[in-house]
Parts: sequence; C-alpha cells; structure tokens
Amino acid sequence: MIPFNKPYLTGKEAHYMYDAVHTGKLSGNGKYTGLCHEFLKKKYGFGKCLLTTSCTDALEMAALLLDIKAGDEVIMPSYTFVSTANAFVLRGAHLVFVDSREDHPGMDEDKIEELITEKTKAIVPVHYAGVACDIDKIMTLATKYNLYVVEDAAQAIESFYTGKDGVKRALGSIGHLAAFSFHETKNIISGEGGMLAINDPQFMERAEILWEKGTNRSAFFRGEVDKYGWVDVGSSFLPSEIIAAFLWAQLENLQGIQEKRLEHWNQYYEGLNDWGAGKILDLPHIPEFATNNAHMFYLVCKEADQRDRIIEKLKEHKVHAVFHYLSLHKSPFYKDKHGDRTLEHADDYSECLLRLPLFYELKGEGIDRIINILKDAEL
Amino acid sequence: MIPFNKPYLTGKEAHYMYDAVHTGKLSGNGKYTGLCHEFLKKKYGFGKCLLTTSCTDALEMAALLLDIKAGDEVIMPSYTFVSTANAFVLRGAHLVFVDSREDHPGMDEDKIEELITEKTKAIVPVHYAGVACDIDKIMTLATKYNLYVVEDAAQAIESFYTGKDGVKRALGSIGHLAAFSFHETKNIISGEGGMLAINDPQFMERAEILWEKGTNRSAFFRGEVDKYGWVDVGSSFLPSEIIAAFLWAQLENLQGIQEKRLEHWNQYYEGLNDWGAGKILDLPHIPEFATNNAHMFYLVCKEADQRDRIIEKLKEHKVHAVFHYLSLHKSPFYKDKHGDRTLEHADDYSECLLRLPLFYELKGEGIDRIINILKDAEL
Repeated sequence: MIPFNKPYLTGKEAHYMYDAVHTGKLSGNGKYTGLCHEFLKKKYGFGKCLLTTSCTDALEMAALLLDIKAGDEVIMPSYTFVSTANAFVLRGAHLVFVDSREDHPGMDEDKIEELITEKTKAIVPVHYAGVACDIDKIMTLATKYNLYVVEDAAQAIESFYTGKDGVKRALGSIGHLAAFSFHETKNIISGEGGMLAINDPQFMERAEILWEKGTNRSAFFRGEVDKYGWVDVGSSFLPSEIIAAFLWAQLENLQGIQEKRLEHWNQYYEGLNDWGAGKILDLPHIPEFATNNAHMFYLVCKEADQRDRIIEKLKEHKVHAVFHYLSLHKSPFYKDKHGDRTLEHADDYSECLLRLPLFYELKGEGIDRIINILKDAEL
Repeated sequence: MIPFNKPYLTGKEAHYMYDAVHTGKLSGNGKYTGLCHEFLKKKYGFGKCLLTTSCTDALEMAALLLDIKAGDEVIMPSYTFVSTANAFVLRGAHLVFVDSREDHPGMDEDKIEELITEKTKAIVPVHYAGVACDIDKIMTLATKYNLYVVEDAAQAIESFYTGKDGVKRALGSIGHLAAFSFHETKNIISGEGGMLAINDPQFMERAEILWEKGTNRSAFFRGEVDKYGWVDVGSSFLPSEIIAAFLWAQLENLQGIQEKRLEHWNQYYEGLNDWGAGKILDLPHIPEFATNNAHMFYLVCKEADQRDRIIEKLKEHKVHAVFHYLSLHKSPFYKDKHGDRTLEHADDYSECLLRLPLFYELKGEGIDRIINILKDAEL
C-alpha cells in the first residue's frame, strides 16, 4: 500500500518538546516560537514572522489587519482551499473569484484587472503547488489601484520568484502579508500549523497585538509599556510551544527534506514526461519565473472520466491518489453569491487534476511502480 | 525559586505523539482527538465535544453558532479574560458587562436581569477559579427571555454544580454551549488548547461543519453525503493530533492530578484560614452549590497597596505570585463603549486579587514556606 501522504519525523521533535517543558513553558511564544521566527525571517527575508495554529488563522489575521469590512471586495482564485475564502467572508467581504491560468491551476494574472472596482480592497494570489504566480504583475496592479496583496503561500515554503529586475525573492516576502501552512500534508509540518509573514511595516505592531488576543502583552514584556491590557480585537492565534518545538526539528532538516522531495518529483517527471506531456494528459508546468519546491506532483487529465479510471487503476494496485479542490464559485455556500461568470479553467482543474503520492519516505521503487501502473493502464 | 506555575507532564505525552505518527496522521481529528472527545463527553455528560486550538477558539465557535451579529448584545462579567469578550466583539456584538459578586469574582447573578434588553442574545457566565456560578439562576433567565447561555468554563474542568433539584452536574454540561481551556496554566494541559461542549442538539451538526473549515467533511467520511464541499463559514478550529495525543496522556491521569492539586489547595486553606479569613485579607469562597476543582488559590487583599506589599515580600523570598484580570469595562479598548455604569466589585478584584503558586510538582514544604512568609509579613 502506498498512501497519498505520510507525515515525516526527523527524530528530534520529542526531544525539543521535552526541552520546552524544562524551560517551564508549553503555551505559545516561548523559546521555540522565537527560534522558528528568527530562522524563517532571516532565511526568506520576511519583514516579521508570527507562527499561528494554522494557515487559516494566518489568513484570518491578514483579514483583520486589512480591516476588511462588510461590502469590501476581495479578489482570489476559485480553485483554492476554503480557508482562503472563509478568512475574508468572516469579516464580511464579498469574494470576487478569478479563473485559473490555462497552463497552471494558479489564478490568471491577466484576468484580475477587469474585476477591480472601487470596493476592491485586496488581492489574494495562491501559489498553487508551491509554484509562484507572476507576482510582479499582481503587485503592479496593487500599486496602481491602491490595493493590498496577501500571498496565500500555504504550499510555498522554500519557493522563489524571479522578477523582471532579475532578483530572486522568496514567495511570501513580496506581498504586504503572506500566509504559510505547516499542515501534515505540507513539506515542513507540525501536524496543524501556520505562519503569517508581515512585510509591510505598518502592520507589524498591530499584528503582534491581534496575535496576543488583542492585548499589548508583547510590548509589556519588552518593557515598552508599564502595564498591559485589552487594546484591540484579537484571537489566540499563537500555537503551543509543543507545536513550535516540533516545527523547529523540521526546519533544522529543511534542506534534507527538500532534497528528498525534489528527487521524488524529478523521478516522476522524468519517468512520465515522454508518455504524458500533453498527449495522454498534462504534467505540471513550472514557469520560467518560478522555482519548484516539490510540494506536489500532479497530473492534469483530459477529462473527469480519465481521472476516475486512473484513480481506480492505482487503487487496484494499492496506490492512493487524490484529486484536489472543487471550484469555490460553484460551492453550495457561494454559488448564489458568485453570479453567472463562468470560470472554465478552474472547473477543468476541479474535474481533471490528480495528485500522486509524494512524501519523504516514499521509495524510488514505489515511484517506479506508480509510473509503470500509469503507463500500462488503458486511458 | 518557586514559580507561579510549572506545566506538568505525566510521562506518556511523547509516547502517544509517536503513536499518532505511526497511525500516519498528525493533523486534526484523528485517533487521539476521538479518544479525548469520547472520554470527556462520557465523563461529564456533555452533548457533544469538539477539541479546539484554544478556549478562545471554542468561544469564537460559540459566537458563530449563535449567529451573533452587529447590534446584538451579550452579557458577561467585566472581570474575565479578554477572549471571553473578543470572541463576541469579532462578530459585531455590543458587550454588556456585569459586576462581580461581593463574595466571589464570578458575575453577580442577581444583577443580570436588569441589563437584559430586546437586543440581548446571550449570557456568558465565567466559572472563575473553576467555582460554579449559580447557573440555575442564569438558565432561568435565559428561558424567561429566550436567550442562549455559553458557559466560559476555561478553568472549570472536573468541577460541579448542585441545583435546587439536588442533581450534581458538571460545569459545561448545563449551558447551551460551553468552552474549556487546556492552556498550560490549567489543571489539564496541552500547552495551548481548548474544547467546545455542545449541549443543545440544534447546534451539533453545524458545530462540526464550522470546525472543519465550513465543509461537510465529517459527514462525508461517515458516508452521509457523497461528496464534500464548502457549505458554511468556518475556521480551522481543530488542533493537531500532536496536541490531542498530549492531552490524552493528561486526561488518563486526571484523577491523580486533581488529588494532588486539591491536597495543595487544602494545605494553603488550612494554613492561612486562622490568619486571613476576613481579618487581614480574604480567602477563596466556595458556595454550597459548587465544588472545588483546585484550579487556583487566591487571596483577596484589603487594598491594592497591601497586594503590592505581598507580591514584593514573596518576591524577596523567591516566590512568584501574580494578580489576574483588569476589568474589561475600563480597558483602553472598551471604556468608551461601556458607558458610565460603575462595577465596583470587578474593580476591587482587579486591584486586590492575588494568585499563589499552585501546580502538580509544588512540594508541601514549598507551600509551608509561602504560608510562613505571609504570616511573618507586616501587611
């Protein structure tokens, strides 16, 4: 049996968790939270980092920081996880969904401008499969129309974008705010977990307050105010030190984890390129401006039936492959609010995209087996 | 040095965490989440349980379930943690703060009715120090005015209330909804963590949907629907299995933990009763309808200066004692919204309540030392 995913432990997670206990602190914002913040900020050039209990919570913090209110419009892809949407719906926003690119499930950067109105407050690009959107295009629109950009970088750790200026920048370091996930299905994990990156300095102080339940507790412990209290809305966005200690063990092994995942990804690509590559079905496309963080290896089938046949065939051979999102503009919750704009590519990916197993402990023989099952199948 | 708190590990936390990894699941709603749900529901007679990443998140779920909207009024004590308040402010509620009882920091049940208006939607009693409010009085008001009751039972695990009918019921099993905390400062911990108890059946199905990010994923995995999608608002309220595994180790040892804490509490009480007890200062009051879960041992000083002197004296002897909440109606965030009603007892507790160290590994000698420091001090 080859599962779709298996969470990987480096071996030091429990050790760090016990160390956290010995410092006398298991609640949030302790030693390991600090280590993770410092590491991520320095490595990827974020303005400021705050760990959260999930990427969902990081997106909710972003919506609060942008003061999203009833009637505001937020532009995002339809082909994304519900949390991208819910975080803004919870603040009262109206969502304006953009179609996916033809060559990639990420949103079509050229279809954004026509959707901007006077009510538009933010654009939320999703770096699908950890592959960059053409973020320069989006930032240019944001500047032109005075909008904020929140990168949904849930899948995009250790992934980069090279703009027209030739500078290679980490995803999540470019938008005003960015949200990352450390869910067990991601490259770097803490079971459930996430992080908000804050790049626009105007949000840094308030982000810390929202994170600490609407109190100025952090400023108090730095000696900047002489008592702390309730100064703003907020929530308990910060994760336990148990989670941060776990995450720290993962981050220490980031390079090894990435090397292994890239090896698996390349084995899939090389093994399937001659066979698939637009004839039988499509393989992932990595634009020139993007790097590949090997978060996901997916196939884009020619039609829904073909995908069903592949899932079935793999299942017969005890391999678990899974599809991904269903277009949010057609969801029971939002279809009546979306109107009648069709989003053809988003629907295609909903029906035709299939994800193959990809995790650290997957063996080369396993990948070969999967490649051969696909090649032998009648599709 | 005697700290105010030290998180206690039973020794099996890491073992269960590794077991969770071996089941292939570290994200939420796995084996250990299920074990915790079942145990808590059965032991305390809750209608349904859902672990959350914090008590704050459980309160936010409650506010969503009650469909709290802009203009709704919610009645709660002023002497409470900011999360009791923020959860409802995030949905647009106006907070109506009630004073504390003279003999206890919990809210004065007899001062609620006069604050009920046509806009009132819910009452949120806080079982301060794990000691029950007179919850029958509050439930009677709720029935009379058609309101919901959300018990803030953050501190109230393994604590009970005996109503006029003579039936002893667990706190958190009485209101329509109830929120618990497993923050490291509580009796049973998971670093950060919480739980929503759902007692009113009308909320059970939707609670599960909100918990699963607004999807009907749980119903899908039970085979009740043939695909799942976005059907409602929601968030990532569920904690990692790492946290649930940790919590399970604690729950297995609940009895031992409670016995030890009660032993400590009783040692404080017996040691200080003759000395304090209304003369120099006040000791905790446990009403006849309530049990004591030994969550907290506090002193109520005669004045703020006396409290400062005690804190200072204990600090000289390397003992860390801390005060607690600041009245929310006087907070920078809410003072202008509260109006000019004075809440005398809430302010008294803000200025005069002092919490002494109380944790599993505290030694009897340590408590004796603290008692002697207090008795020797000039107050």
